[in-house]
Amino acid sequence: MPTAIESDIVAEGLLRVQEEVDSLFDAFLSVPEDSRSRLVEAMRYAAIDGGKRIRPLLLVSTAELFGVGRDYAMRAGCAVEAIHVYSLIHDDMPCMDDDALRHGRPTVHLKFDEATAVLAGDALHAMAFEILADPAMSGDPFVRAQLVECLARASGMNGMAGGQMMDMMAEGEEYDLHTITRLQQLKTGALLAASVEMGAILGHVPPEGRGHLRNYARDIGLAFQIADDLLDCEGDEDKAGKALRKDEDQGKATFVSLMGADKAREQANALVEQAIGHLAIYGDEARMLCALARYVVERDR
Amino acid sequence: MPTAIESDIVAEGLLRVQEEVDSLFDAFLSVPEDSRSRLVEAMRYAAIDGGKRIRPLLLVSTAELFGVGRDYAMRAGCAVEAIHVYSLIHDDMPCMDDDALRHGRPTVHLKFDEATAVLAGDALHAMAFEILADPAMSGDPFVRAQLVECLARASGMNGMAGGQMMDMMAEGEEYDLHTITRLQQLKTGALLAASVEMGAILGHVPPEGRGHLRNYARDIGLAFQIADDLLDCEGDEDKAGKALRKDEDQGKATFVSLMGADKAREQANALVEQAIGHLAIYGDEARMLCALARYVVERDR
Repeated sequence: MPTAIESDIVAEGLLRVQEEVDSLFDAFLSVPEDSRSRLVEAMRYAAIDGGKRIRPLLLVSTAELFGVGRDYAMRAGCAVEAIHVYSLIHDDMPCMDDDALRHGRPTVHLKFDEATAVLAGDALHAMAFEILADPAMSGDPFVRAQLVECLARASGMNGMAGGQMMDMMAEGEEYDLHTITRLQQLKTGALLAASVEMGAILGHVPPEGRGHLRNYARDIGLAFQIADDLLDCEGDEDKAGKALRKDEDQGKATFVSLMGADKAREQANALVEQAIGHLAIYGDEARMLCALARYVVERDR
Repeated sequence: MPTAIESDIVAEGLLRVQEEVDSLFDAFLSVPEDSRSRLVEAMRYAAIDGGKRIRPLLLVSTAELFGVGRDYAMRAGCAVEAIHVYSLIHDDMPCMDDDALRHGRPTVHLKFDEATAVLAGDALHAMAFEILADPAMSGDPFVRAQLVECLARASGMNGMAGGQMMDMMAEGEEYDLHTITRLQQLKTGALLAASVEMGAILGHVPPEGRGHLRNYARDIGLAFQIADDLLDCEGDEDKAGKALRKDEDQGKATFVSLMGADKAREQANALVEQAIGHLAIYGDEARMLCALARYVVERDR
């Protein structure tokens, strides 16, 4: 269990990041005075005032370990969040997960229409890379190029989109624990890991110095998904702001269906302790990342 | 009219680029041995052996003006083409243009399914930026970051996706010539212009030295779209490999509906001559770009 102080740290951290992300999205997404306004309104609807912003908090907290200016880290955090938001818009569509609610509000294709949802997702996708490649992101073009490479790899066929495909194919398939783990590492883990990695890139940490952070990210990624599966089984739809118990209805194997809820919870907690262990070398500086690790398995939405 | 020699130059140029693009896509898109294979098969189906490859030819021909190695230019050309292909996949979907044929073959959502079409588009979108940010693209990270910035800007809400939104809103609207021009500059022109600009970026041409090329790109972008509108009115569906006469059915204003076919053709030809004029300072070195300008208005698909 996270201590009360740890919960406070994360709650404060998320609140601050939520405000900063919203303010940046507001600046990036000014509504044009032509018929593109509908597109940008849809992007704003999906991107602003929604979501926990765990990925930006992971990114800025990692960047902070290496003394990166917060404004720079927040821009990169916004880029990761733009990818996350675009993926939710597309995943919610009728041909994908067919969800009506997201963050307690109608999904984009219901609030607007399906064509607008496709385009709003696509435009947020492009925006993420525009943010990262902009000289305002970092004075060092090598950092900008590395950020783009890291996020693009984590989003595409060998990352999030690949994991989403495996998930679409899961219905009726008998995936084992190994395959479920791989699926989740791609679908959710890749973007969480990219958030940490991008913090390290901004901190000019060379690839060979990112081992502990990568191990931390891998462990919390898996713990995050086990917690998601537990939430899907046992959670409160009102708190979650979205439909739950979908995996069971669709006959998809999850960590919970394969391991049982008790074993799954135990595993998630073990992963969190392991994740925190990887950060020992950073000492007290890594307080937020440690608290975040506990938060990902204890959240109720 | 292009001379016979010019037509040969373009035909040869396109043929060569088609082979090179296909071979690069084949290398980038190796099929994994898990259930992501369906995703990558869909990406290959859409990306390989289809399309005229005008954008990559524009890019390599511009890069050639500045002595850029062809392998580098082709990689960037592949990235632009990946964006073009992803946009076709999404545009063809039932909620967008609802097209059944593309390059004479069933569209991706019919050959596979809608969810796979969404994800294949998304994964190609990410791949474009992964290609550009990869150190194999250019030894100069500033070049890589600039390429990403240019392509992301041309693809998003202030480029292709924005133009597509304006196009979706056009049904039943009374767009005037000014608005149609703006729409087409975004929807088609931005990516054509980015192809030229990226060639210049690879050639280390500073922004202030790109004026003639930008003017050329703007003119052929517009000529390209007028030619498309003429093709939509007068073309042969078998040659085009896709459904035609859709604009009229949907009551959308086009250059042809607003200006009449004769005036539109005249305008396209004038734009082509103007485009060629902008390249005078490059002399005979710009032979391919000049021939391409004539080709865009004379093509039959």
